[in-house]
Amino acid sequence: MKPKNITDIKFDKCEDSKYINPIRMIFKDNGKRRVWDIIEVHNSVATLLYHKDKDSFIFVKQFRPAVYLKEHKDSTHQECGYTYELCAGLMDKEKSAKQTAKEEILEECGYDVKLDNINEITEFYTAVGFAGSKQVLFYAIIDDSMKVNNGGGIDDENIEIIFIKKQEVRNFIFDKSYPKTSGAMFAVLWFLENVK
Amino acid sequence: MKPKNITDIKFDKCEDSKYINPIRMIFKDNGKRRVWDIIEVHNSVATLLYHKDKDSFIFVKQFRPAVYLKEHKDSTHQECGYTYELCAGLMDKEKSAKQTAKEEILEECGYDVKLDNINEITEFYTAVGFAGSKQVLFYAIIDDSMKVNNGGGIDDENIEIIFIKKQEVRNFIFDKSYPKTSGAMFAVLWFLENVK
Repeated sequence: MKPKNITDIKFDKCEDSKYINPIRMIFKDNGKRRVWDIIEVHNSVATLLYHKDKDSFIFVKQFRPAVYLKEHKDSTHQECGYTYELCAGLMDKEKSAKQTAKEEILEECGYDVKLDNINEITEFYTAVGFAGSKQVLFYAIIDDSMKVNNGGGIDDENIEIIFIKKQEVRNFIFDKSYPKTSGAMFAVLWFLENVK
Repeated sequence: MKPKNITDIKFDKCEDSKYINPIRMIFKDNGKRRVWDIIEVHNSVATLLYHKDKDSFIFVKQFRPAVYLKEHKDSTHQECGYTYELCAGLMDKEKSAKQTAKEEILEECGYDVKLDNINEITEFYTAVGFAGSKQVLFYAIIDDSMKVNNGGGIDDENIEIIFIKKQEVRNFIFDKSYPKTSGAMFAVLWFLENVK
């Protein structure tokens, strides 16, 4: 299905990108010369939010041009290019991972959560072949008393908040018509197993 | 700790990369013009291998220049730049995901597994901000009778096969000194929960 609200899509050459800067690493592996091209990207944080009044998890629905590019020729998705992700953001400022997570929860989802209520699960790496950035993964349990605005992101972001009931979340994460990240899927399985 | 067998590391400008080709997408989102830079990368497959004679999961240890670049300044890893991943590979040929998985299991790990014994778990997306490639995730239960060579990859690959006992795998996936992908961590939790 075509992506809602997304129109006039065009592709162009990409010269002098501000966002994608390749770097070349040259090294010897067991004495043999190897060359590897990498893009340097920021590390990131992501938080699984469980809303206890609604007995629901929060997913962030947003349009991802990169997913649209890969999938638009033969998509079986609900809406091509939209993904369902954890509340997440880049660590592009001089702030701790937990502080970054707190600010993203406020900006994207509209909840003001105390640092003490944001709990680290673990960390992992993504796109290890060409980018290798780390993501620190958190969870937080929230409720209506923490709601201070409607979220939706800042500036260019076009973010929709989706609530999925706890009893439906397992079906949701395995429904391939709603594209997700492996980090979101891991976080949900971990939460169901570890948090009562 | 410094990466074993990796020496003479240098970084250089990266012009005309054969591997990293940015493309620019221009579109309207709710009528507002937006521009997004993407790199187009191949989709991939990954397989969680459980070796029943050894009661162990198989992880593929390899040196990842991109992870080294991100981590070498303040690494707390066992060996900076080495990751512990599922047996995986790019879908860069005209073959099905399952056939690609079968060939990667043979090349990287040395086991000849029938297609019927390779089972799809699900699929997900990684690096959705800038690459958006899909990974199809499988699992397979293997044994010594399927071993036909020592694995280790082909051409430039420098892959080491690591066996982790089932009873130790949960501690292993949460030990941050061994860097892993979220896909590998998700696959392990899924397997422990779903496969007897």
